[in-house]
Amino acid sequence: MDFLDIMRQRRSCRAYQPDRTIPREQLLQVIEAGRLTPSGCNAQPWKFVVVDDPEAKEKVCDAVVTSDGATGAPWRHQVSAFILLVEQPAKVMQLVERHYHDTQRFAQGDLGAACMNMCHEAFALGLATCVIGVNEQSKMERHFGIPHGCEVRLVLALGYAADGGAEPPAKVRRPLEEVCCFNRWQ
Amino acid sequence: MDFLDIMRQRRSCRAYQPDRTIPREQLLQVIEAGRLTPSGCNAQPWKFVVVDDPEAKEKVCDAVVTSDGATGAPWRHQVSAFILLVEQPAKVMQLVERHYHDTQRFAQGDLGAACMNMCHEAFALGLATCVIGVNEQSKMERHFGIPHGCEVRLVLALGYAADGGAEPPAKVRRPLEEVCCFNRWQ
Repeated sequence: MDFLDIMRQRRSCRAYQPDRTIPREQLLQVIEAGRLTPSGCNAQPWKFVVVDDPEAKEKVCDAVVTSDGATGAPWRHQVSAFILLVEQPAKVMQLVERHYHDTQRFAQGDLGAACMNMCHEAFALGLATCVIGVNEQSKMERHFGIPHGCEVRLVLALGYAADGGAEPPAKVRRPLEEVCCFNRWQ
Repeated sequence: MDFLDIMRQRRSCRAYQPDRTIPREQLLQVIEAGRLTPSGCNAQPWKFVVVDDPEAKEKVCDAVVTSDGATGAPWRHQVSAFILLVEQPAKVMQLVERHYHDTQRFAQGDLGAACMNMCHEAFALGLATCVIGVNEQSKMERHFGIPHGCEVRLVLALGYAADGGAEPPAKVRRPLEEVCCFNRWQ
């Protein structure tokens, strides 16, 4: 399949078939797509925590609810597995530290790219995905032993799309003219 | 081609054939991969400035050198075209603003994902790419009229790999055991 076809067909999924499990072999293929992702200064400032144990999944479901009770993932209990994408301290070139005074300058972008690649590989395996952005860091640390200072940047939900999940609404994007210009800001 | 094969084969390229141009049609296919990228709250907090005019390219070559004369891209004058990935203010759900007090919480990750997708589409088109992380924002604003506050997060270099560029050294990545664990931080 052409890569743009993947881009056009893949959708975030918010309705999953409950009580299904994903073979570990497939989860590791998804992880491999993250592991191979390029990163600033090749720092690879990430750790991926795969969560597929039922009790541990319940803890993720708790941690993506904020302390005031809000969540962007009301469908979270249907998910087959989660991957926590955790940011780690990055070792970058002196040039970067000198210019930005920040070793983590590229880290968030790197994790975004890794997450995107995991979505593509999951799609290739017939799995549905959705990226959950909001989580309660203190719960993540308590539930999973994540070291203080290593922020959970993204949570990737994986599973099997429920009936109808295969024909989602059209992709809504800003038009080309609005997001692209040539040789000067316009 | 299987998606993991793309991940395994694609390399950052640091030696290009000079004086070659990329058809606008192909550049727009690369932009399309960026435009279709999913983003936090579907905010699409980006603008892509394609730079393929020779004079404007010289300005990019200047802007990826910092004020103290350093650059991570000594090969920049060989590049056929650049794409500046510029972060714009994001409109996110109330839940996100309340929890993180930051409309830009997801923006860097979103731009990282968009840049990754552009690399994949370029690869599909036979183009070589390298992401340049360091740039001098004040030069970008002066050279391209980029509004103050809209940060150039990444610069994507595109071109045709020079001889030997097709057989680059092996990919260096942290081993699986180091970047992945199951159900608890280890």
